[in-house]
Order: sequence, then structure tokens, then C-alpha cells
Amino acid sequence: MAISKEAYLAARDRAVSTFERAGIAITEAEKDNIEVADFGLGRLDEIGVELVIYVNTDRVCAKEVILFPHQICPEHRHPIQAAIEGKEETFRCRWGTVYLYTSGPATANPQGIVPEDRKPYFTVWHEIVLQPGDQYTVDPDRLHWFQAGPEGAVLSEFSTPSTDEVDIFSDPEVQRIPEVY
Amino acid sequence: MAISKEAYLAARDRAVSTFERAGIAITEAEKDNIEVADFGLGRLDEIGVELVIYVNTDRVCAKEVILFPHQICPEHRHPIQAAIEGKEETFRCRWGTVYLYTSGPATANPQGIVPEDRKPYFTVWHEIVLQPGDQYTVDPDRLHWFQAGPEGAVLSEFSTPSTDEVDIFSDPEVQRIPEVY
Repeated sequence: MAISKEAYLAARDRAVSTFERAGIAITEAEKDNIEVADFGLGRLDEIGVELVIYVNTDRVCAKEVILFPHQICPEHRHPIQAAIEGKEETFRCRWGTVYLYTSGPATANPQGIVPEDRKPYFTVWHEIVLQPGDQYTVDPDRLHWFQAGPEGAVLSEFSTPSTDEVDIFSDPEVQRIPEVY
Repeated sequence: MAISKEAYLAARDRAVSTFERAGIAITEAEKDNIEVADFGLGRLDEIGVELVIYVNTDRVCAKEVILFPHQICPEHRHPIQAAIEGKEETFRCRWGTVYLYTSGPATANPQGIVPEDRKPYFTVWHEIVLQPGDQYTVDPDRLHWFQAGPEGAVLSEFSTPSTDEVDIFSDPEVQRIPEVY
């Protein structure tokens, strides 16, 4: 499942507007290169993220993550590789509200809502609510997923280098690297 | 040379106001723990930085750096340690203007102004001007210093782990770890 050029451009423009509402400066080149990931599921409004990668060397990575209202980043983990520890991620909410879920005691009445047909692929329900200024660090190899609240959200991600190509998603239909057609 | 409690609290309050002007959310706990570094020179308005450290593990570090108007972070480098490569730093301007200097051809009419008596300790004058959204990565072991423009500035620093205790400053009187009396 690939994303159409029109859908890509619409999501990109919406992400640019979200940055403006959040008061976060990005360059014209960064605006032109916003990454739109629909995880190959073809339902970007429900499951997807929009990314600006500020830096990604062999030592360190920093990104800004945009989530549209109620948009979900699906459940996954960053496995420990042969000689490399798994990716360590800190999410810091800059704007809006983020519901972050990871392993631990399931929260009784979680605020996240996932599509009925994908529910089997969301297995961790320990809820952490992030408001602007709040942050949480996800250890290597630990399952997690997150969803925006009703306004959408902007998250900063500070991490060891990005390993998108080896991330393990709970949903077998997820394709992390988007195709645009 | 230590910083007085009054000077520390005044700088902290000023840093909090700068975060508010920049529209960057920090928590009450972070406000209470803002680090004020006068580099042991006792002239914070001219030479100093204010820091909020978001994350600093053995793998990755992220900070927000506040500079008051014309405030200078003095020239230094992050040396390569025995088994560890030197710190790699990316500075991203969030608000205000930053004049960053590093090795390379000296800029003819640089906008940075340093105190006359410290001039011998500013040896690199290749100027990079950072406006909100602009960023620059300083390689390990490379000399650099930076100064805020007339409004002050907020910088995000994304890097490998902080090595403040081994950083090498060009000014022999600099003490990186502040004392508060």
C-alpha cells in the first residue's frame, strides 16, 4: 500500500500548519522534506506520523514528530541488534496532548482509541499522558505506541540513532518505510 | 570565583521569562533546576549560559540553552577521550539570533563582540549566523564558541553524552562547573 502524491502533499501542508500553531521554527527545506509515514496501512488520518529529522548521525538522532488529532503511531519496539543496543527514545511533548502506552499495569480507562480491526496489534496499555513540557524515556526493546489528543500534538524525539528499518511492529501489515506513488 | 545565591536566582528567573517569550514549555521542576553557568569568571551578563537538561544518559543528551542578550559561551572543544570519541553537538536556534564561531576562514566583519581582556582566548572567528530553525553540527574536538544577538536566544542542543567535566576551554580561568555560595 503506497501513499498518493496528493495525500502526501495534503499531509505535508497540514504538518506545516501544525508547526506554525505550535510556534516551532522549521526551514523551507525542512518543510519541503517532511516525512509522511502511513505505515503502509493506507489510513493516514487514523494511523500515521509526520516527521522532521533534525539530525541523525551514527551517534545521535533528534526529530520533531507531528500527530494530527487522534492520529496513532502503532505499537512497536526497537530490538537489540548484534553489537548495538536497541534504540533509546525520549519523547517530549511540545504542544497538544499525547497518550503514550508501554508495558506495565494496564490503565483502567485509557484515553486512547484504536480502530476495532487493529486492536489485536495494540497489546500494551499502560498509559502516560504527556502535556507540553512533559517527557518520557522508552528503554531499548520495550513495546510502545502513542496517539494524539483532540488538538493533535508536536513531540520532540531525542534518541540514539534511528533504526526505522529494523523496528518491530506488532501489526504484521505495517510497512514502516513509506512508498509514494 | 563562585556565583551568589541572589545572582543565581535572578538569572534563573530571567531564563524562565526567556522560555516564556520563546513559547517553549518547561515544567515547574525544570524551572527550579535551571543550571546557571558563569564559567567561574564572575561576569555572567557577558560570559555565561543558562541550561535545562532534558535527557543525559550514557548514550544521548538533549538540552535547551538560554543566552541573554549578547551573552557569550566561551571558546572550548570536546576532546577525544581514551575509548570515547569526543562529544558531537548539533545546535539548533529556536528563538532569537546566535552567532556561532568555529575553525575555518575568519569572517571579515564578525558580529560577535568579546570583552577586550578575554580576546586572546577567542581564537576561532569563522562565523555562522543561526536564526530560528537554523542549525549547525560541531564535530568532536573542534574549537567553538557562541554569542547571543541583541534579543538573547534559545538554542536546542542535541548531542552524544555531555562531557562538561572534560571540556577544554581556551581561557585558562574558565571553571565549567559552577559554585553557588
